[in-house]
Amino acid sequence: MAEQKATNITWHEGDVTRDERQQNFGQRGVTLWMTGLSASGKSTIAVALEKVLLARGKHAYRLDGDNIRFGLNKNLGFSADDRAENIRRIGEVAKLFSDAGMITIASFISPYRVDRDLVRKVHDDAKLAFLEVYVDCPLEEAEKRDPKGLYKKARAGEMKGFTGVDDPYEAPERPELTLRTDRLSIAESVVELLRALESRGLLEA
Amino acid sequence: MAEQKATNITWHEGDVTRDERQQNFGQRGVTLWMTGLSASGKSTIAVALEKVLLARGKHAYRLDGDNIRFGLNKNLGFSADDRAENIRRIGEVAKLFSDAGMITIASFISPYRVDRDLVRKVHDDAKLAFLEVYVDCPLEEAEKRDPKGLYKKARAGEMKGFTGVDDPYEAPERPELTLRTDRLSIAESVVELLRALESRGLLEA
Repeated sequence: MAEQKATNITWHEGDVTRDERQQNFGQRGVTLWMTGLSASGKSTIAVALEKVLLARGKHAYRLDGDNIRFGLNKNLGFSADDRAENIRRIGEVAKLFSDAGMITIASFISPYRVDRDLVRKVHDDAKLAFLEVYVDCPLEEAEKRDPKGLYKKARAGEMKGFTGVDDPYEAPERPELTLRTDRLSIAESVVELLRALESRGLLEA
Repeated sequence: MAEQKATNITWHEGDVTRDERQQNFGQRGVTLWMTGLSASGKSTIAVALEKVLLARGKHAYRLDGDNIRFGLNKNLGFSADDRAENIRRIGEVAKLFSDAGMITIASFISPYRVDRDLVRKVHDDAKLAFLEVYVDCPLEEAEKRDPKGLYKKARAGEMKGFTGVDDPYEAPERPELTLRTDRLSIAESVVELLRALESRGLLEA
C-alpha cells in the first residue's frame, strides 16, 4: 500500500460542496468498476452505457486501460508492483471524478482482489458510491472472441503474465452486479447497469 | 520525462466524442493552471471561481495540492524526481477532466517551467484548451500573509526546499493570464478569469 509521504498539508474543503456539484449535474457521483477477463466485454459495455447515459443528458466519463496507459500510467510496466500501482492510481482518479459528480466508468481487467478492494476502500472512505461490476465471461468464450489476438500471443508464449493464461483472475466475491456476457446481449447488460444506478437513486441529485 | 512502457494497447476512441460531452455540458473542456508562490492566492481564487461558475450552471472541478497529495500522489515526496512526477500526474489528470468536458482548475505552486511546459504539451497534443495563469504576488507580500506559517518554518530551517526561500520559483514567460494579487481583489481576479474563458468561447459548447 502506498505510504503517505507529504506533510504540512491540510484537506481543503473549498466553498463548493460535492452535493452542490451533484445538484448542478442532476445526478450523483459514482464509480462503476468493470472487472473481468480480456475480451469479456468490459469496454464494449462501458461504451454502450456511456452512450445511453449521454442520450439521457447524464454526465459520464470512461477510464480504460487504453487511454490511461498512454498518459497517467505511461511510466508503469507490468511488474507486480507496477500493476498494483496502475490500479491504485486509476482508483484515485475515479474517486476524483466521482467526487466531481460524474458517473465514472472504469473498465480494467484488474485481476487481483486486493487491488480492487483498495479502490473500494478509497471510495468508502470518501463516502462515494462504488459499484463493482463483474463482467463474467468463461475463459474459453473470451479466448474464442480474442478480438486483438492477445490470447493467441499469450498461448504462443509471446506475452508473459497474461490474465487467464499464465496469470490468475480472482473473481469478485461480492460484486454489486454480475453480467454474464456469454448469455446477455450488450443491450441487456446496459439495462442491468442502468437498473443498478437507478435503484440506488444515482441518476438524480 | 516518463517513458512509455506498455505495449499491445490501442487508443480506444469510443462511441461518445468529446464534442458530444461538451454539448451535453454546454461548455468546453479546459484546464486553468494556476501557478504561483505559496500564499499568492491560487486556492482562494480557484475556490471563488468555482463558486461563480457553479452559480452560472457551469461544471468545474478543482485539483489542488491538498487533495491530490492525500490520494493519487500520496506515494510521492519532495525529491526533485517526485516533484516532477507530482506535476506530471496532475497534468495528466487535468487532461482527463478537460477531455470529459469539465472546467478544470488546477492550483499548484508548480515552480519549474519544464514541468508546466510538459503539462501544456500534454494538453496541446490532445487538442485541449490550456490556460496558464500566473498568480503573481511579490515574495515579501506572500511572506507577510503566510496563513499557514510555512514561510516562517522555512526561514527557521524547519522546512527544506521551500519555494521562494531556498528553492527557486521560475515565473511563466508567456502565461495566458497574469493576476497581480497584491493589486487585485479576489473578485477582480475572478472577473479576469471569466473574461479569459468567455473570450475564448469556452463557456458555451
